[in-house]
Amino acid sequence: MGFKHLVIVRFKEDTVVEQIMKGLEKLVSEVDLVKTFAWGEDLESPEMLTQGFTHAISMTFDKKQDYTAFQTHPNHVEFSASFSAAIEKIVVLCFSSVQVKPAIA
Amino acid sequence: MGFKHLVIVRFKEDTVVEQIMKGLEKLVSEVDLVKTFAWGEDLESPEMLTQGFTHAISMTFDKKQDYTAFQTHPNHVEFSASFSAAIEKIVVLCFSSVQVKPAIA
Repeated sequence: MGFKHLVIVRFKEDTVVEQIMKGLEKLVSEVDLVKTFAWGEDLESPEMLTQGFTHAISMTFDKKQDYTAFQTHPNHVEFSASFSAAIEKIVVLCFSSVQVKPAIA
Repeated sequence: MGFKHLVIVRFKEDTVVEQIMKGLEKLVSEVDLVKTFAWGEDLESPEMLTQGFTHAISMTFDKKQDYTAFQTHPNHVEFSASFSAAIEKIVVLCFSSVQVKPAIA
């Protein structure tokens, strides 16, 4: 099912999130290594559940080596500088996704 | 793109995670409201990035009402009791996913 890269983030208060996401969308559209990319902003979960995190970002790669290559890709390195500066707090998880539903054909 | 339910969790030390996940797989296979379900265990990200979280669970519903109905579904209520007891810490986010790649046809 490929290699999943999941980011949960809370941005600093003065962050223009739209601008960050536009940059991220540009980045993944330029780099073929990224096979899927989606993001979203939490709608209305209670603070007790979100722990203050507001955004989720999800990417899929064919294999771990592609993820590693993406991390060191010049476009990613450039984007990371502005992204990192905007982060209030973050969780990053990487895993081989176990897709249960829909069942794998 | 549907309604996404994302859970990041760290289980208590004595938890048999396989058993929890089997229960979760059984639950989502029984409830048609759940359209996609995947989970994974973080492979090797540094503690600085994972913040101690170890597992990610992702579900998709057609619409928010289906998610709400799932929350109160008897099977979910029953599962939640054992799941909640095993949690060390958790983040839950719900959002309408913005799917950027692959492009929406």
